[in-house]
Amino acid sequence: MDCNDPSWKTKSEEDFENNRFQIPHLTEIFVDDVSIPSTFCLKSRRSPVITEEFVEGYQSDEKWNGYVNNDDKVLLKVIRFSSPTSAGAECIGPDCTWVEQWVHRAGPRENIYFNPEEVNAAIVTCGGLCPGLNDVIRQIVITLEIYGVKRIVGIPFGFRGFFEDGTPEISLSRNVVENIHLSGGSLLGVSRGGPSVSEIVDSMQKRGITMLFVLGGNGTHAGANEIHNECRKRRMRVAVVGVPKTIDNDILLMDKTFGFDTAVEEAQRAINSAYIEAHSAYHGVGLVKLMGRNSGFIAMHASLASGQIDICLIPEEPFQLYGPHGVLRHLKYLLENKGSAVICVAEGAGQNLIGRTNAQAASGNSMLGDIGVHIQQEIKKYLKENSVPAEVKYIDPTYMIRACCANASDGILCAVLGQNAVHGAFAGYSGITVGICNTHYVYLPIPEVIAYPKHVDPNSRMWHRCLTSTGQPDFN
Amino acid sequence: MDCNDPSWKTKSEEDFENNRFQIPHLTEIFVDDVSIPSTFCLKSRRSPVITEEFVEGYQSDEKWNGYVNNDDKVLLKVIRFSSPTSAGAECIGPDCTWVEQWVHRAGPRENIYFNPEEVNAAIVTCGGLCPGLNDVIRQIVITLEIYGVKRIVGIPFGFRGFFEDGTPEISLSRNVVENIHLSGGSLLGVSRGGPSVSEIVDSMQKRGITMLFVLGGNGTHAGANEIHNECRKRRMRVAVVGVPKTIDNDILLMDKTFGFDTAVEEAQRAINSAYIEAHSAYHGVGLVKLMGRNSGFIAMHASLASGQIDICLIPEEPFQLYGPHGVLRHLKYLLENKGSAVICVAEGAGQNLIGRTNAQAASGNSMLGDIGVHIQQEIKKYLKENSVPAEVKYIDPTYMIRACCANASDGILCAVLGQNAVHGAFAGYSGITVGICNTHYVYLPIPEVIAYPKHVDPNSRMWHRCLTSTGQPDFN
Amino acid sequence: MDCNDPSWKTKSEEDFENNRFQIPHLTEIFVDDVSIPSTFCLKSRRSPVITEEFVEGYQSDEKWNGYVNNDDKVLLKVIRFSSPTSAGAECIGPDCTWVEQWVHRAGPRENIYFNPEEVNAAIVTCGGLCPGLNDVIRQIVITLEIYGVKRIVGIPFGFRGFFEDGTPEISLSRNVVENIHLSGGSLLGVSRGGPSVSEIVDSMQKRGITMLFVLGGNGTHAGANEIHNECRKRRMRVAVVGVPKTIDNDILLMDKTFGFDTAVEEAQRAINSAYIEAHSAYHGVGLVKLMGRNSGFIAMHASLASGQIDICLIPEEPFQLYGPHGVLRHLKYLLENKGSAVICVAEGAGQNLIGRTNAQAASGNSMLGDIGVHIQQEIKKYLKENSVPAEVKYIDPTYMIRACCANASDGILCAVLGQNAVHGAFAGYSGITVGICNTHYVYLPIPEVIAYPKHVDPNSRMWHRCLTSTGQPDFN
Amino acid sequence: MDCNDPSWKTKSEEDFENNRFQIPHLTEIFVDDVSIPSTFCLKSRRSPVITEEFVEGYQSDEKWNGYVNNDDKVLLKVIRFSSPTSAGAECIGPDCTWVEQWVHRAGPRENIYFNPEEVNAAIVTCGGLCPGLNDVIRQIVITLEIYGVKRIVGIPFGFRGFFEDGTPEISLSRNVVENIHLSGGSLLGVSRGGPSVSEIVDSMQKRGITMLFVLGGNGTHAGANEIHNECRKRRMRVAVVGVPKTIDNDILLMDKTFGFDTAVEEAQRAINSAYIEAHSAYHGVGLVKLMGRNSGFIAMHASLASGQIDICLIPEEPFQLYGPHGVLRHLKYLLENKGSAVICVAEGAGQNLIGRTNAQAASGNSMLGDIGVHIQQEIKKYLKENSVPAEVKYIDPTYMIRACCANASDGILCAVLGQNAVHGAFAGYSGITVGICNTHYVYLPIPEVIAYPKHVDPNSRMWHRCLTSTGQPDFN
Repeated sequence: MDCNDPSWKTKSEEDFENNRFQIPHLTEIFVDDVSIPSTFCLKSRRSPVITEEFVEGYQSDEKWNGYVNNDDKVLLKVIRFSSPTSAGAECIGPDCTWVEQWVHRAGPRENIYFNPEEVNAAIVTCGGLCPGLNDVIRQIVITLEIYGVKRIVGIPFGFRGFFEDGTPEISLSRNVVENIHLSGGSLLGVSRGGPSVSEIVDSMQKRGITMLFVLGGNGTHAGANEIHNECRKRRMRVAVVGVPKTIDNDILLMDKTFGFDTAVEEAQRAINSAYIEAHSAYHGVGLVKLMGRNSGFIAMHASLASGQIDICLIPEEPFQLYGPHGVLRHLKYLLENKGSAVICVAEGAGQNLIGRTNAQAASGNSMLGDIGVHIQQEIKKYLKENSVPAEVKYIDPTYMIRACCANASDGILCAVLGQNAVHGAFAGYSGITVGICNTHYVYLPIPEVIAYPKHVDPNSRMWHRCLTSTGQPDFN
Repeated sequence: MDCNDPSWKTKSEEDFENNRFQIPHLTEIFVDDVSIPSTFCLKSRRSPVITEEFVEGYQSDEKWNGYVNNDDKVLLKVIRFSSPTSAGAECIGPDCTWVEQWVHRAGPRENIYFNPEEVNAAIVTCGGLCPGLNDVIRQIVITLEIYGVKRIVGIPFGFRGFFEDGTPEISLSRNVVENIHLSGGSLLGVSRGGPSVSEIVDSMQKRGITMLFVLGGNGTHAGANEIHNECRKRRMRVAVVGVPKTIDNDILLMDKTFGFDTAVEEAQRAINSAYIEAHSAYHGVGLVKLMGRNSGFIAMHASLASGQIDICLIPEEPFQLYGPHGVLRHLKYLLENKGSAVICVAEGAGQNLIGRTNAQAASGNSMLGDIGVHIQQEIKKYLKENSVPAEVKYIDPTYMIRACCANASDGILCAVLGQNAVHGAFAGYSGITVGICNTHYVYLPIPEVIAYPKHVDPNSRMWHRCLTSTGQPDFN
Repeated sequence: MDCNDPSWKTKSEEDFENNRFQIPHLTEIFVDDVSIPSTFCLKSRRSPVITEEFVEGYQSDEKWNGYVNNDDKVLLKVIRFSSPTSAGAECIGPDCTWVEQWVHRAGPRENIYFNPEEVNAAIVTCGGLCPGLNDVIRQIVITLEIYGVKRIVGIPFGFRGFFEDGTPEISLSRNVVENIHLSGGSLLGVSRGGPSVSEIVDSMQKRGITMLFVLGGNGTHAGANEIHNECRKRRMRVAVVGVPKTIDNDILLMDKTFGFDTAVEEAQRAINSAYIEAHSAYHGVGLVKLMGRNSGFIAMHASLASGQIDICLIPEEPFQLYGPHGVLRHLKYLLENKGSAVICVAEGAGQNLIGRTNAQAASGNSMLGDIGVHIQQEIKKYLKENSVPAEVKYIDPTYMIRACCANASDGILCAVLGQNAVHGAFAGYSGITVGICNTHYVYLPIPEVIAYPKHVDPNSRMWHRCLTSTGQPDFN
Repeated sequence: MDCNDPSWKTKSEEDFENNRFQIPHLTEIFVDDVSIPSTFCLKSRRSPVITEEFVEGYQSDEKWNGYVNNDDKVLLKVIRFSSPTSAGAECIGPDCTWVEQWVHRAGPRENIYFNPEEVNAAIVTCGGLCPGLNDVIRQIVITLEIYGVKRIVGIPFGFRGFFEDGTPEISLSRNVVENIHLSGGSLLGVSRGGPSVSEIVDSMQKRGITMLFVLGGNGTHAGANEIHNECRKRRMRVAVVGVPKTIDNDILLMDKTFGFDTAVEEAQRAINSAYIEAHSAYHGVGLVKLMGRNSGFIAMHASLASGQIDICLIPEEPFQLYGPHGVLRHLKYLLENKGSAVICVAEGAGQNLIGRTNAQAASGNSMLGDIGVHIQQEIKKYLKENSVPAEVKYIDPTYMIRACCANASDGILCAVLGQNAVHGAFAGYSGITVGICNTHYVYLPIPEVIAYPKHVDPNSRMWHRCLTSTGQPDFN
């Protein structure tokens, strides 16, 4: 983008709206496709459950204004920085000019591109567990049924279920999914890896799938994108819709991803345990490792929510263990002055430290990469060397967090994401993913989501909040 | 606003930004006031806790980019409707033209208008209980201490504490508030009513208060606004900052108010109980009354989160109990076809029905206004008259919801609201309130907040979501 | 019992053991019945799941000592009072002589009186909800399957399911019940009332039921006893086994009944809410009504567990509202001296007060019997008359308590009760119920259980504990 | 005991009652000591809080029967085995003759041996954290105050607080402890080790302590016993009372120790997470390590409560990992037939396996003793070698369990233990510990408690229950 071009702002805005965030539609391939009126309409209550007698009773004269117009748009950025030095400023151009970035609003369309009676829908959940998977599955199934879809299956254990001789697919209906949101995990099972894209699309063809709903993370979305492209290449009339699943919340474009809120809630429990252990011991140190491969959102949010963390270490911000500015010296200071300390570390933090130390130690390769265990060992060593008696308690609550069922806030997020995934497919979009952006639900082209891992700038708003969480300097 | 004026959009935007959402500043009265550099700076770690030795160790050369520029702004509306018939469309002008509405971004300023050593801060919590009150109190105290404030008091039992002979004020410090966020309620106590504005300001003058933090609802904010005006009139150099407390979440300008998320979480528990009772009984009916005087947010969010509600009744949408389109006939249908039903009703729903029915009945005036009890009675009567055996279980979990401690999500919201309340006061603003708007924290002039009760349009996004929550027609 | 008879103690003990606590056996009717070796044997791992290859692998030479001998007995009373004035003393005879009362130990017998292949088992849950119903159902089904039973059904909605044209019975298997203990309520549904005993036994005969497991309270057990008698009369070879279900815990002979522990846990949450409300208000009064028709166990245990109750009112101990020794005067004292108060009242407490007051008032008949509402009204009236400002918050958490799923402690209790119910049936006993007595599981003849409602003597151990719970005099 | 002696039963019973379970009393040393009437009396409501006006109002004519007679006794064993082969039979003598073992009933005595005004009470908590410590501390303080004691202190960080230059003692009163039971940990802090017995008693003498309440495990009770003996030797008039704290529940004489119930509750949460992880993965294996150094109570109870465990490994029962009867082969069987498996292992299980394997491996000494990590590694190795794809998830929830606050059931247990500890001290007993035995509270001489570690016999009732918990053979 050449900012000297006087119309760069307008050009930039047009590029965002018409290229980068434009979402693919079936009519780009099937140019003769025509839509039919939506079968999704709540006001007339055409649910098959309703008996004849009632159909009439419930019908309403007034037009139902529940559809979302195709051209409704939502802003991606809503803050106008007045200076590049303002906290968390992200500026395009030298003067922090505000550039509008519009993305598509999600929701049910008045006209749809699939006849529900002919739809063969499949749902697949990939990667690791995340609170809310069952909520999304449930709502996709329920919404499909409201449209009138009869054939819905779950592909078991991620893409692995597309293997020729894989576990048989699971027949889904409202009855089957009615209460699955009350337990954690995934009704369909999760797994990493699976057959090649070509094999997957072969299998989809053989099964006659016309809508594929994919719940997964970065890698899974990359796969979904390739599946979408392969389907286009084969001129298969299929809608591929992703629902981003990343407990780490590391997608820059979205307010939050499902499961994150629940994860923070549960992580806070672990922090409270560490706090209790630390404060009940003589020179107690509580150390909690939380999820977050490349971003420290869970660690920081849980620290902030708990109000009980003295030091929070995240991948975005390098730190030293040793030296006058090092974590260990500060820890010693805390023990001697406060009597105890609680540390929260994201699993992806300080990866640079692990290699070096292990190289020196020439042992324990199996530990490679586990920053929690590493810091625990270094703390014990350092305090012993400095003759500071201490009790170090290390907690790794990962699986207890992942396996939870969604809390109310995630339950709502999942429900609306699931509904909108189905609306997007019926609207004829493919190669899209659904998310929440500035509290509104949106459709994004899959590649954009993959391209935007969410890192925390140390000066950003998020980061700033966390620093102030304990009202004390910490080391990160 | 005359939409025929070709520049109406620009004028409208200027009016929003420069008039309606402009926030009052001390320098409007005290024109000679000059600011000093902020004492709030995390990077240099000047906390009084740090010993001399460390002060140096921690200091950093790089400039801390943690301050928020006074002119940073956040957009109030972020959705561009392409048609007035699009779901939830709120349009200014005939063509749904998008109009920018900018409000002030909250956060610490580089320059402050109070010398922390001279600050006398007071905190007061008014109205009914709401999860998170202690979290906000705690964070205000902690942030004040980081600035260097020494004198912080809590006014007990709302404005009542300003009475001449009231309960003595409570001295506050980090030590006192350290763990208060772990229990519900308010450390300071809450209460409605109290002395007149003039008496309150007299008392503030006598106590020498220079910063007043007011946590409360609509009425309380109206009071805070009058206090602010009275202080201006008396030329008292006082910052009055509100933190909106409304468990009902009925402020249109904000994403959500603190305590709401926790309330929904707990409300969902009550709904689950009603669901279990209903489904375990022969023709079981579960009825849950939830908070919401003028808006049905808690009822709808909890219904959506639970996925277990058949009928959700809210104040925004009138409904009939009797008649072919009435709730009772639908309930009978549900019992006969599903075997059980669960109803959620907001306390403010169907107020029109209560008067009328009671007038007819000429009895039970004491029931007036309790829609939960009323519907319960009508259900029993109707089903009995129609010879449908049924077991009706009524749950009113109000106090069990209000008295909870904040969940993680509210804990974070409260912490950042508390911090920003203090930043706003030091920045020299008065007569403001803090909120979260499109995931960003903002300052708003108090009168604007009072003027925007949040009602749900039956065609709006919120409403639409809820209708689809159960995938079944409901009656509201 | 003539205590002057020198052998009265021995005679009394023999009477207890051989008459009152003797349990009926099929061989009393079917004198030629012979037993077969039990098919329940864990050591040889004969579960049908195990493949041939493994059967051998697992078999063990050593004899499995897991069976309970028919003559094992458990003591009902284990405390020897040295004086009738000792706290809670229950004495037989003038000198508090200790009399042994032996009852049958529950557990799997080495020989059984039913061929599992010919067993037709039915389970029925009656009365109101109680945490743990699903746990017991689940364990009965699992244990029946371990014995080798193939035909297991659930009778829906209590005895009502025996109606000719009732809801169809529910086929049960391990697969069906695997996860039902994770939710509250009853998979089978509950209900009061139903057909006559004669109709029920007709239906059992028609269905060919040979084992009937009845989960219910006093009335249900009376019904089970009549069914057992009717079966004997008709010479039907049926085992009728009860599992006592009373959330009130009002069976004198048992340590506790299932669901009680969970109820206390949840009740404590309601008390904590009342405490928070009371302590956050100016002159706050929290009032919690808990279950307990004739006994105050839930109220007292929850009060003791919470440590937050000032006054606990139970059915066993009469009290006055008015007068110098009345509850209201004490409440006024508490408000004036402590600033707030929390009251816990069992639903059956003070029933004498309600009638009288209502008679005087000649109104509000619908209120009759609701002591919680009554006390709330009297408190408001009294405090108003005495010009004591106060905020009274009333909580009735009944349905939220009943609908919970069992906590771990109840989960274990339910599991072992369920197992032992099946063991008892296979052992050929009928007309029995299972319980836990001095931490051991026992079989009791049903009539004994019906005859022993559990009341709390005001001087008893239980009562004494509760009085001391708050370290303050209370009024009960 | 010579069982040929015809009076062996009587002699044995006398020995139990008069020697082994006799509890030491101050008057054995201070023979001239006389008692005074107890100041603990609830009926007359002599609490100092009550104003003069009320004292009279509340007094009651009737005698309060709340005291426990010194000679009240409780039976230790309540089951009469009819055969040594009966499940869990513990027999004295060849014929399983039933032998009465009477121990002292706990509770307030009518006469006391300390003048409350002269009492200097100290409380100390030793060892690791356990849910309920704060509940016991709280109730000891409250009960001491009811007696009229004014000087109560907490010794910080276990016996370590008796060091000359230790952390200053903590002044305790009802006000200080009012809400401490709402959080986990110990207000006083815990620690292992400390000064010698002689130093401790020196310090007690210097501080003038007359009542010492010790909360701790086996080692701590051994210490308390020595302190008691040393005090006797020095003729110090001190009551030393223990409250057994062992989260493992490994005291044979007692129903359960405080914190155990809460631990099981929380452990069940971890098991549920493991279950969800295992069942959502392709060939998922969940592995949970729980506390239990020499006994598997937590592991077995949590397994039984959850109903989700396939294999439960405990210290009491040796097992093999490899071989045809080994755990690993069974695990493979489960994966291939059920698709997933969940294993629960007590930390003290299979210690024999660790040494051998590690010796062979000649590495990873740091792993020595961690059976959870060991089994996890062996599972991965074995399944890989056998080409069984699997995902193994290992959870160690230890600190999250220990740091919990007590659940309602433990809250009650702790409250009554705390009360009875104080009653025992005032009664003049020393060198005793309090416990619950067959649902009654008792006093035991400390040495007896130390001598009875609770192991689970594989044929015992406990064990039997657990085996049947999943209805499947497991390997333990």
